[in-house]
Amino acid sequence: MSSEFGKLLRISVFGQSHGKAIGVNIDGLPAGETINMDELNAFLARRRPGTSALSTSRKEKDQPIFLSGLMDNVTCGTPLCAIIENQDPHSPDYDALLDKPRPSHADYTAWVKWGGHADMRGGGHFSGRLTAPLCIAGGIAKQILARRGIHVGAHLASVGTEQDVAFPLHPTQELFDTIARKPFPVVDDERGTRMQELILRTRESLDSVGGVIECAAIGLPAGLGDPMFDGIENRLAAALFGIPGIKGVEFGLGFGSARLYGSENNDPFTVENGEIVTASNRAGGILGGITNGMPVTLRVAVKPTPSISLSQRTVSLSGTTPSELVIQGRHDPCIAHRAVPVVEAVTAAVLLDLIMEGNHGTI
Amino acid sequence: MSSEFGKLLRISVFGQSHGKAIGVNIDGLPAGETINMDELNAFLARRRPGTSALSTSRKEKDQPIFLSGLMDNVTCGTPLCAIIENQDPHSPDYDALLDKPRPSHADYTAWVKWGGHADMRGGGHFSGRLTAPLCIAGGIAKQILARRGIHVGAHLASVGTEQDVAFPLHPTQELFDTIARKPFPVVDDERGTRMQELILRTRESLDSVGGVIECAAIGLPAGLGDPMFDGIENRLAAALFGIPGIKGVEFGLGFGSARLYGSENNDPFTVENGEIVTASNRAGGILGGITNGMPVTLRVAVKPTPSISLSQRTVSLSGTTPSELVIQGRHDPCIAHRAVPVVEAVTAAVLLDLIMEGNHGTI
Amino acid sequence: MSSEFGKLLRISVFGQSHGKAIGVNIDGLPAGETINMDELNAFLARRRPGTSALSTSRKEKDQPIFLSGLMDNVTCGTPLCAIIENQDPHSPDYDALLDKPRPSHADYTAWVKWGGHADMRGGGHFSGRLTAPLCIAGGIAKQILARRGIHVGAHLASVGTEQDVAFPLHPTQELFDTIARKPFPVVDDERGTRMQELILRTRESLDSVGGVIECAAIGLPAGLGDPMFDGIENRLAAALFGIPGIKGVEFGLGFGSARLYGSENNDPFTVENGEIVTASNRAGGILGGITNGMPVTLRVAVKPTPSISLSQRTVSLSGTTPSELVIQGRHDPCIAHRAVPVVEAVTAAVLLDLIMEGNHGTI
Amino acid sequence: MSSEFGKLLRISVFGQSHGKAIGVNIDGLPAGETINMDELNAFLARRRPGTSALSTSRKEKDQPIFLSGLMDNVTCGTPLCAIIENQDPHSPDYDALLDKPRPSHADYTAWVKWGGHADMRGGGHFSGRLTAPLCIAGGIAKQILARRGIHVGAHLASVGTEQDVAFPLHPTQELFDTIARKPFPVVDDERGTRMQELILRTRESLDSVGGVIECAAIGLPAGLGDPMFDGIENRLAAALFGIPGIKGVEFGLGFGSARLYGSENNDPFTVENGEIVTASNRAGGILGGITNGMPVTLRVAVKPTPSISLSQRTVSLSGTTPSELVIQGRHDPCIAHRAVPVVEAVTAAVLLDLIMEGNHGTI
Repeated sequence: MSSEFGKLLRISVFGQSHGKAIGVNIDGLPAGETINMDELNAFLARRRPGTSALSTSRKEKDQPIFLSGLMDNVTCGTPLCAIIENQDPHSPDYDALLDKPRPSHADYTAWVKWGGHADMRGGGHFSGRLTAPLCIAGGIAKQILARRGIHVGAHLASVGTEQDVAFPLHPTQELFDTIARKPFPVVDDERGTRMQELILRTRESLDSVGGVIECAAIGLPAGLGDPMFDGIENRLAAALFGIPGIKGVEFGLGFGSARLYGSENNDPFTVENGEIVTASNRAGGILGGITNGMPVTLRVAVKPTPSISLSQRTVSLSGTTPSELVIQGRHDPCIAHRAVPVVEAVTAAVLLDLIMEGNHGTI
Repeated sequence: MSSEFGKLLRISVFGQSHGKAIGVNIDGLPAGETINMDELNAFLARRRPGTSALSTSRKEKDQPIFLSGLMDNVTCGTPLCAIIENQDPHSPDYDALLDKPRPSHADYTAWVKWGGHADMRGGGHFSGRLTAPLCIAGGIAKQILARRGIHVGAHLASVGTEQDVAFPLHPTQELFDTIARKPFPVVDDERGTRMQELILRTRESLDSVGGVIECAAIGLPAGLGDPMFDGIENRLAAALFGIPGIKGVEFGLGFGSARLYGSENNDPFTVENGEIVTASNRAGGILGGITNGMPVTLRVAVKPTPSISLSQRTVSLSGTTPSELVIQGRHDPCIAHRAVPVVEAVTAAVLLDLIMEGNHGTI
Repeated sequence: MSSEFGKLLRISVFGQSHGKAIGVNIDGLPAGETINMDELNAFLARRRPGTSALSTSRKEKDQPIFLSGLMDNVTCGTPLCAIIENQDPHSPDYDALLDKPRPSHADYTAWVKWGGHADMRGGGHFSGRLTAPLCIAGGIAKQILARRGIHVGAHLASVGTEQDVAFPLHPTQELFDTIARKPFPVVDDERGTRMQELILRTRESLDSVGGVIECAAIGLPAGLGDPMFDGIENRLAAALFGIPGIKGVEFGLGFGSARLYGSENNDPFTVENGEIVTASNRAGGILGGITNGMPVTLRVAVKPTPSISLSQRTVSLSGTTPSELVIQGRHDPCIAHRAVPVVEAVTAAVLLDLIMEGNHGTI
Repeated sequence: MSSEFGKLLRISVFGQSHGKAIGVNIDGLPAGETINMDELNAFLARRRPGTSALSTSRKEKDQPIFLSGLMDNVTCGTPLCAIIENQDPHSPDYDALLDKPRPSHADYTAWVKWGGHADMRGGGHFSGRLTAPLCIAGGIAKQILARRGIHVGAHLASVGTEQDVAFPLHPTQELFDTIARKPFPVVDDERGTRMQELILRTRESLDSVGGVIECAAIGLPAGLGDPMFDGIENRLAAALFGIPGIKGVEFGLGFGSARLYGSENNDPFTVENGEIVTASNRAGGILGGITNGMPVTLRVAVKPTPSISLSQRTVSLSGTTPSELVIQGRHDPCIAHRAVPVVEAVTAAVLLDLIMEGNHGTI
């Protein structure tokens, strides 16, 4: 039960970076949902390595092939499996590399877990490439949610110490769409330029840099989620930590609320157009694990890509001796901006699962 | 499946603050484990409201009664159910209160979910009191882990803007024990004094304040956890967000790593006493969701108690009209220090589940 | 995850025969459901050992105590825990008994699983007594279902080679109620008399005898259940095999259909009062794991009570040597008639879970 | 969570009969296990429609393509996805057919569940063709189990009223292999001839016939499985009912034991070669849901194929009016003999999951 998540909607990811194909199986999709393939491809394009110097120069086509679950692009209720065939990846002399685990990669823990049997060529199952099938699932979930007035959007909140502005109290679908169309997914383009400059400088110094992604969902009804261990936060966090490189997840003000007084952090209830709302949204739309009808907001911390071109200390697994390592090839100096649609995808998938489950507090 | 967590070890919490009893059912405990009742009671005492002005003045005895799963204080393999009877809680005029949801409490979302049927007297099932049964489960898990050389400890890392020092690279059982015996759970007592002063000042201003808890587990073998969605981080986060008031969870440097360069964040591998270790531990002992043998470290953000004595804006549910609310009674000005053993408890329970599952990467 | 079942509605059973209490925790019950305590007690009385010679002479009071989940006998949405305190059971010289596992009991497998730590006094967690908490859960589920026009009933289909008549094509609530009020739960009382005589003869010969229970549920909508491994049959069977002594589960004609031709076994579709129905119901209301709107029918095989007073061959665990065993005390010569309400209870609990999940084939 | 089963080993089946491909994703396979492709293909060949008149004349090649989880035919620990591409199936005028649900098929319930969106061409996801990916998973599980001395075998116990002899008390790997190599999977070939004659006569009368399959597993350690709802029987039954056409599952004597006295049904313990065994095995190797070290034995009832060439009564869904139906094309007069390896496959997959979980009664 490792590479799967969800309750009524189960999403299973499979594949290794240098295997025959990667893919996703989605069990429990509602029937009768048309998949807009252009929209899905546009969504997938957002996580693909771009043509700019901000990303790896590796080209990926990533055209999904749908094996099941569809008739004429309409879901038929049974499991939907989609794959992306891997191009011939020229797996070179990986044997040498495999003896020297890359610092802060899963090379070492995969070796402990699966012995010499782990397929860690190109990062194997831990590769960022596995986020492509996640985006297929999440892109489909986004379309199904959007038809019900629920929209999920995200932006790059920071790169290193350079920050974007935060989402407003009431983010809109238009704002989400605008950001999604930008080559660099930020709210404030001027700040975005500074963030990009930081990434380019990082690349020049053969290093990498981390970032933070802020995600929001609007249009959710109040009453979704269950108390304690099956709340919105539990389920979103459990899924979001499945994205490679995520080291922190917070909702609303998150760690920021830990520095505040209650009088600063509490969200007063008020009435707006006959509806009960909160005047602020430091809780991120969630109280007691249950949605309160305000936007659900969350932030995830993305660590700097561990693959850097600087020389690093490591060990030889065969000899249990200290060693040096210089990782060859070109790597992303930052993955946080490419992870923005992935966070949207995972969030959308979890929310669709919750929507399918509904509020069964009373029946 | 709301108030339960775990895979081979399932922990279910039940009860409302003002019901007959609260309790926990633990399904899957290994047999033959002696429960040291003195040690367990000492652990439970750590979360109990103290005698100082730092906590609510409510007295709780919280003596657990074991209904099943034990013979002569030794686990017998079948589900262990333990309860704590509630004292007569003098539920006063709650009806009035129930019409005015307390800001940032679950009052409103419980009302949406369960209609007028929710039992929200004293916070109902969302009350911090429900962490007592969690501590019974976690206290038992801690004893079972300790027998296998695995120790879990935590301290209060910050209150508002006042900070304790962080755990060292190699925290020890002795350090955990020392902190556990202190009336205020910090590493550095001088800093602890400043934190307590902040809590007392907050109380005087009728307010509350948040905090951060740092938790660590030592002695874990490398290779626990599965990739993507069933890793250590996914499972710990899913459980930790079940503690009332938690709004963020991070592992290792967490959000801090998002501000760093890869060269600053990567943990070089090295050899120590013939063992492969990392020279630093910014990853918090987890790579690719799998333990690497270093201490697992995590931090959780605790929001300020929403119950404050200052007047607050809210609404009347019956009239859907704006209203004012002054919460009566004495409340904790801070719950973060009392949540320290709860974080230990939940962490220990998840880790025992993982230990029972073992590393089944090969069989 | 051993003594639990259910998806949105999770039912956990705990307790040992000679422990302090047995009980059940029900997580996920919808709020606002009044529990009619008289009706529940009447249901629980059906499985209690009677005053006749048909059952063990052990007296059980089995009055449930509700610890949580209720306010004024109305469910409040959070977990409902109910317990039954065990009377002082005079656990006598069990040590001697524990060395000689009773044939076809769980004594031996419990010893293998939990070593000498298993609490097998009176059958421990495997005792038929654990079906009392199951009946609390199922009795509550039956009441909630009945309010929605769904009724579950069962009768004793056979004892040894003596058979009752089968349920008609369209069993009614009235029929279920009539059987439930009978001291011996059969459709045809004349056949019931023969079955009781067989039980009494069996008792006189110091032996025990098995039986078959037929259960039906009416009023279910078509469309419940999911294909392949999450269908009605999968979920019912998984739960029903949790009742001690059940060795077979079949739906509709079950094993009988294996002896038929397709032309004999197929259920023709037809129209009745403008509704699509089937003219026969050999499928037991289930096609492809999904309800078709006809009564769901199932049968379970109950093995003869393994506790018999005749001398039996067994082994001494301590010496790994052959031995003889004569089980002391009075035992049920047949448990099948007492298991009738238990089968109803488990069936009702699974069906309520499915009703809560609903038909999410489209959303 | 419909087309999936398993706990540590998760098996997900996808595909429709007339879609692009069918397949299976296996999450949690241990690493380092070589897949003998010849052996796997030989196993898959056992369920393929043969060249004889006993089966449908449809030709299937069913060559699996492995997309992930393997390196040089050795499992690498991460999810293994294998697919079988569907040949162009000439889906003819299915629209007409879809308005008239075939009696005792899932046509009607799929229509209720997914509306007009269900892809029921050729039976869709409910087609017996979906058992091919199940056999890929089970064939792999069988190889992994065999390396650990655990062998799973099955035979056709009956067709209609014609019966094979039962497995002996101690079936052997040799017996399993012998049966697996036979064109008709029975113990006693003379009886097998009578069974085949019955199938051929059934075909001539344009009808179909049901059957029973007996399956056994040898070499399992005692102590696997958990009490009540997570025992061997619960888990096997839940998975076995996922095979299309299964209407009953029993363990050991099953329904037969319901007709017996305890003195006839109990299995006396005895000592053989210093090991505790039972002198008979009416319990099917399972006591209290836990293996006792004897062969696990089970039987499943396979209903007659609902597709028969005789004219049948059905309804028109569009008009809600009675109608007649003659199913065109050639169909299996019996699927029970082809289901023999499928039952082995599902049983092996569940047992491998249990082996991976191990006996965690003590740690």
